[in-house]
Amino acid sequence: MAARSGHTEAIPASKVIGTAVYNTAGQNIGTIEDVMLEKTSNNIMFAVIGFGGFLGIGEKYHAIPWSLLDYQSTRGGYVVPFSKEQLEAAPAHSINELTNDDGAKVRDASYDFYKVEPYWY
Amino acid sequence: MAARSGHTEAIPASKVIGTAVYNTAGQNIGTIEDVMLEKTSNNIMFAVIGFGGFLGIGEKYHAIPWSLLDYQSTRGGYVVPFSKEQLEAAPAHSINELTNDDGAKVRDASYDFYKVEPYWY
Repeated sequence: MAARSGHTEAIPASKVIGTAVYNTAGQNIGTIEDVMLEKTSNNIMFAVIGFGGFLGIGEKYHAIPWSLLDYQSTRGGYVVPFSKEQLEAAPAHSINELTNDDGAKVRDASYDFYKVEPYWY
Repeated sequence: MAARSGHTEAIPASKVIGTAVYNTAGQNIGTIEDVMLEKTSNNIMFAVIGFGGFLGIGEKYHAIPWSLLDYQSTRGGYVVPFSKEQLEAAPAHSINELTNDDGAKVRDASYDFYKVEPYWY
């Protein structure tokens, strides 16, 4: 069976959630809080990174295209190719906004901002 | 932005995990324990359904193509289009087997058994 499969690397969503995220300068910029999935297709929409807030109050979230997350075992977390300044300028959302309009609004803004080729064309 | 997006329906992985799964006869056949993702593509590989075992000892898992899960709010869970007998004959795996060979072996066996068109061609 392996011959027909091509290369994949499986990661359970439960292992992704809770993993730390760093920027290119090695600063911890938050934690993966969730992974947004599409119900009606086979696609991962984006990763949800939480930052700021206190005990969930006023916490804001970045939606980051899945393909931008690079797990680095030496760091024990994901590294995203952005500076602190770029991330501060990135779209941020409340927890409820993330699933507004079926998630498409947040997803589109994310792929636009990070200049990642949309997967849905 | 919405105009370019087509239809999506966003669901956080954390909400999927822990949801009950029923077969077509309304029998509870287990719980979604996890969702297997591909690190190097944008794809959801399969849902992991736990059944049997006791406190995790000897528990076995089915890998089920994401597209076969149909959430029914009246039931409060996912319904999969199989009889009890079909599910008993389905491939079952230990937790460690699920990610063997980067998950491709389990994924391929699942799509074969459930006769779902592979997404990876």
